Amino acid sequence: MSYSPKTVTAAVIIIGDEILSGRTKDQNLAFLAEALNEAGVQLRECRVVADVEAEIVAAVNALRVSNDYVFTTGGIGPTHDDITADSIGAAFGLAVDFNPEAVAILEAHYAHTGAELNQARMRMARTPVGAALVENPVSKAPGFRVENVYAMAGIPSVCQAMFHSMKHELIGGDPVRSISISVHLAEGTLANGLSALQDKYPDVGLGSYPFYHDGRFGASIVARSQLPERLAAAADEVRQLMRDLSGEPIEQGDEA
Amino acid sequence: MSYSPKTVTAAVIIIGDEILSGRTKDQNLAFLAEALNEAGVQLRECRVVADVEAEIVAAVNALRVSNDYVFTTGGIGPTHDDITADSIGAAFGLAVDFNPEAVAILEAHYAHTGAELNQARMRMARTPVGAALVENPVSKAPGFRVENVYAMAGIPSVCQAMFHSMKHELIGGDPVRSISISVHLAEGTLANGLSALQDKYPDVGLGSYPFYHDGRFGASIVARSQLPERLAAAADEVRQLMRDLSGEPIEQGDEA
Repeated sequence: MSYSPKTVTAAVIIIGDEILSGRTKDQNLAFLAEALNEAGVQLRECRVVADVEAEIVAAVNALRVSNDYVFTTGGIGPTHDDITADSIGAAFGLAVDFNPEAVAILEAHYAHTGAELNQARMRMARTPVGAALVENPVSKAPGFRVENVYAMAGIPSVCQAMFHSMKHELIGGDPVRSISISVHLAEGTLANGLSALQDKYPDVGLGSYPFYHDGRFGASIVARSQLPERLAAAADEVRQLMRDLSGEPIEQGDEA
Repeated sequence: MSYSPKTVTAAVIIIGDEILSGRTKDQNLAFLAEALNEAGVQLRECRVVADVEAEIVAAVNALRVSNDYVFTTGGIGPTHDDITADSIGAAFGLAVDFNPEAVAILEAHYAHTGAELNQARMRMARTPVGAALVENPVSKAPGFRVENVYAMAGIPSVCQAMFHSMKHELIGGDPVRSISISVHLAEGTLANGLSALQDKYPDVGLGSYPFYHDGRFGASIVARSQLPERLAAAADEVRQLMRDLSGEPIEQGDEA
């Protein structure tokens, strides 16, 4: 009997009018994709939604049932457009209130800095009732978790710090390893042979990513699998296919 | 009676395992967000989905009914993992076949370059039956449109060229204009006043985007509206709020 790898999945919800308007380029998706992969968790979908409660609720509820983990980014600050706590509360049918542990963190922080812990800043201590906190080593105001949904900050440096605070909680599956091999051959030249290899290796995903730079077309073939031996065998055959077509495989090394 | 602006919306579906694995950083969302905005079309949602037909179909069908336009990127090349045509066909219940106009484009192109128009490359001429084509000035293999859904290339330079080929087809609404004003004040200091301004200007979206660089926290307040006079009035009050809080407004000029 063949080994069945354990697969653990996640989805990311980027909450942010500023991404949809083109004002800000998202940086959290690329970070989370890579960091989750290292933790043995496969990112399966990402949605970028507007700062509108109904849309956040719909995304959270659609993705939390079909994935092991969901991460939201953005909308946990002190201003009126920070509605992630209310939206996740609504998604779970939970009241949203001041979280005593979060209140204590903010009180200690603002006592230390001397800034006023006003009504707006106190909003950052609101979570769905019963939520666990995610530590924020950068600016203190915490993220939170309800069941399998983690609410993280939108500022990339804070989002990253929060992820490192909580990543030990994630129970990953067998990691997906990948091997990337590029060649200066057109995709259309590789395609028939590659399709035959995909049929031969159903347990290895073979992706073909065309590129165009310095006036030359080429393709990167990325083999991905949770089964290291099958991955290595498929990659060898990809290299041989390239040589058979008079292309020189350009290795990009084993990636995580 | 007050003027009701005309709103036209779009969604983007990024089809790509390579984005979800963290291998590739998406560049098309930021481009489309800005380019659509210039065309008077507001991007309302983006989904990044895996190269899995059922997931692409679900995203296309969810988003095409709730938006005026949908743009997909990726998955229209010659390899086995290019399944956008089949997926959009399935979403609309349309057969997928060789598009005579697309076949003619490919035949002319490969006759010119001398490369072989093999079975794999011919896949790039397949579209849902009745689809209109989107011209590809870079590498010729066209995108296509079915009703309000445009299938574009994933390579950023090709996606951008295709967009410029078809943007005259878009019927935009009243453009959303924005004014961005930054200040070295913490969001929590601005939040109460900003919330009052949001209540006063329901027809202007006031977003607050914290930043942190060179060791200083600050916030960019972005006012967005389809009503230029209301936008200007709200922005004036934001500047005054900042000065009242001893902050110096840093103008980023009027953006498109």
